[in-house]
Amino acid sequence: MDTNPTITKTEEAVMISPIQMLAHWQGHRALTRKLIEVFPEKEFYELRIGGMRTFAELCMELIDIAGPGVKGMATGDWHIDQSDEDMAHSKAPETKKELLALWDAGTETIDQYWPRISLERFQEQDVAFGRYPGPVYGMALYFIDNEIHHRGQAYVYLRSLGIEPPAFWDRPN
Amino acid sequence: MDTNPTITKTEEAVMISPIQMLAHWQGHRALTRKLIEVFPEKEFYELRIGGMRTFAELCMELIDIAGPGVKGMATGDWHIDQSDEDMAHSKAPETKKELLALWDAGTETIDQYWPRISLERFQEQDVAFGRYPGPVYGMALYFIDNEIHHRGQAYVYLRSLGIEPPAFWDRPN
Repeated sequence: MDTNPTITKTEEAVMISPIQMLAHWQGHRALTRKLIEVFPEKEFYELRIGGMRTFAELCMELIDIAGPGVKGMATGDWHIDQSDEDMAHSKAPETKKELLALWDAGTETIDQYWPRISLERFQEQDVAFGRYPGPVYGMALYFIDNEIHHRGQAYVYLRSLGIEPPAFWDRPN
Repeated sequence: MDTNPTITKTEEAVMISPIQMLAHWQGHRALTRKLIEVFPEKEFYELRIGGMRTFAELCMELIDIAGPGVKGMATGDWHIDQSDEDMAHSKAPETKKELLALWDAGTETIDQYWPRISLERFQEQDVAFGRYPGPVYGMALYFIDNEIHHRGQAYVYLRSLGIEPPAFWDRPN
């Protein structure tokens, strides 16, 4: 271990910094947004494979998690509504355009709240949305992974429609 | 910034440590392994949706990337075979059992080489497999994300067969 206490050295010696992880997530979010854009409006709301949710429903899960999730990570306040016992997700608005506006609001919320999360906070234990215990860094990873997981499913939906999806690797990093 | 130079404090002040990221990835790999196990042998090699690759072919991509990728991250040696100009992936063995043995070998390679990657190395620029430039931490994220992406697609394949996949969230972290 390097015991040199210069701040510069200490700041550089991390696997990945919060600002790098934020850029990584926002890169993924930009790709998911592209998928929503290229998805045909009708099938966005109607296509299911194997009884799974529509892409519109999956997007509402991602929207419900992202902004409120980062707020909770930053503040410890998870805005739990006790009446919502089954954690049902919000109903999708009637058009992709309206859904994209919700998406963009989430993107702004993330940019606003993420920088308020201290390094120490990422290593704290908390209970996401009042029911999922774990370290705060694990919540960030979960939110990102869950988006990749469901977007991967949307790739299959698009391919089943004969539509070429945007490339998975074509993201700012 | 905390300028207290005690090593304990410095070690704690990271968003996520390499050992935590390794555990996160191996948790994902354990879940992907479960998916391979529950996938029916015949459909593992034959089922396609929308002209996509079979899950067996997707798994070979993951196997080709994981072990060699972490070796490259650790050593800077990407074992480029210049005759393999199109980066074609290895052909899947004829049984899931043999493929799972390759999977487990990759898991061991990751456990063996990951701890050799220094913190500074994660922030270095390199060219993964001789053709994908970027910071080394970005390669780790790409390898993990790519696995989640393709496994999400396998979830749709399984659902299309009427099979309930293992829960996405049921991973060691």
